[in-house]
Amino acid sequence: MQLATVRFAAGTAAAARIDDSWHELGAPDLSALLASGADCRPGAPIDGAVPVLPLPRPEKVVCCGLNYGDHISETGRAEPSHPTLFAKYADTLIGPGSDITVPAGLQVDWEAELAVVVGRELRNATVLEAEDGIAGYTVANDISIRDWQCRTPQWFQGKAWDATTPLGPVVVTPEELDPVAGIEVICRVNGLERQHGNTKTLVFDCATLLSYISTFTVLRPGDVVLTGTPGGVGMAMDPPTYLDDGDVVETEIPGIGTLTNTVRFR
Amino acid sequence: MQLATVRFAAGTAAAARIDDSWHELGAPDLSALLASGADCRPGAPIDGAVPVLPLPRPEKVVCCGLNYGDHISETGRAEPSHPTLFAKYADTLIGPGSDITVPAGLQVDWEAELAVVVGRELRNATVLEAEDGIAGYTVANDISIRDWQCRTPQWFQGKAWDATTPLGPVVVTPEELDPVAGIEVICRVNGLERQHGNTKTLVFDCATLLSYISTFTVLRPGDVVLTGTPGGVGMAMDPPTYLDDGDVVETEIPGIGTLTNTVRFR
Repeated sequence: MQLATVRFAAGTAAAARIDDSWHELGAPDLSALLASGADCRPGAPIDGAVPVLPLPRPEKVVCCGLNYGDHISETGRAEPSHPTLFAKYADTLIGPGSDITVPAGLQVDWEAELAVVVGRELRNATVLEAEDGIAGYTVANDISIRDWQCRTPQWFQGKAWDATTPLGPVVVTPEELDPVAGIEVICRVNGLERQHGNTKTLVFDCATLLSYISTFTVLRPGDVVLTGTPGGVGMAMDPPTYLDDGDVVETEIPGIGTLTNTVRFR
Repeated sequence: MQLATVRFAAGTAAAARIDDSWHELGAPDLSALLASGADCRPGAPIDGAVPVLPLPRPEKVVCCGLNYGDHISETGRAEPSHPTLFAKYADTLIGPGSDITVPAGLQVDWEAELAVVVGRELRNATVLEAEDGIAGYTVANDISIRDWQCRTPQWFQGKAWDATTPLGPVVVTPEELDPVAGIEVICRVNGLERQHGNTKTLVFDCATLLSYISTFTVLRPGDVVLTGTPGGVGMAMDPPTYLDDGDVVETEIPGIGTLTNTVRFR
């Protein structure tokens, strides 16, 4: 099933897709729906529904770096024994079609990623419990300000710029998608393919990441975990290549959808 | 003025101290008071008021590492050109007197710190604007799980354990305290002094940190910034020394107060 937060004339709503239309689920957005623990019972169709940022204010957005072999190689690091984790804030998130707004003069890079949405509270969860706790999958781009990321040993300040992380357009429930079997993760810049990875090569799969994180901090319905980016980032190109004002970033996972976001220097 | 969130028979309240009693400020806690933008007009005294975690759910808790010369030296690093920042979640926070609860077998270390509480929305703030935006100062201990912190290049997973970061007991407003002129930051373990620094040796002062952070993410009333720890952490001792079940950690900043928290292995 495809779930989304949609905008329509009267506001926003959590919605499920049936054929080509979006049907209301009795909550103002997917965060509220997941927090309520209610079942997904599609109601009336919503006229003029357009998917927006699916999870408007997740409390936790945890990101895993260095999780694809080809990306680990291009950064010159060894394969890690544990997930490399960092946090970003809900303020970083933007929806499908929204602009990636950054000041001019920064090294703005792309990182297409599969994102996992948490469906139930996870504390010290086993991998199997974590797998059961996945509400679904969506697409993210962990747009990174490389010069700030590399100023200090901690990446956070290059990863937490407001309004830079596209997420969406929809959340696909687990029975329709199996990242362990393999789904493609693609990034195009101005139509040119820059990344094309497959989640079957993830060092730490989705359930393993959720289980690991839940060892130290509780994950709640609507929290989001970004699973890392495959090879092909701009920083690793020769010469290093960054996003410019007006560049169009397309982030695609077949089976979920495509995020199209334009870089705007402010 | 000293501000706190206090617990009393009927619940919790934001309160201001007048002489030896706590007076209500018309909000359920300091987070709500700061978010409302209301002036502090102390009302009736509250019977049996006891300070608890002053900011129950800050949206952002940003931490600066490597910000005192003696601590930078003990970690073997050079003085940084930019603040080293990482995030922790509100779930990490505990109040005065609460236990630091961690599983047995981890390398649990202390990090006494001055914490700054944001009083107004800061976006791209100059240092002067940031200084005007400080609601006050409180005490924190950035208890760190060193083995997890050192598993990967990113410290986050050693810093974000739920219920490990004491904060409080009160928030002191800026006219009573000047960290640039110098205030002491002290940590004792089982009565033995382990850290004793002074904020006048901070590489990046409070207003500089808030201004810097506000370049990439908005800070809102009630958000908290931890300013780093002075030398004397357990990891740097010879041999390295960590906290054990039942150890009592006292974190003191004269002019604000003392946090007393006991380590409990769960």
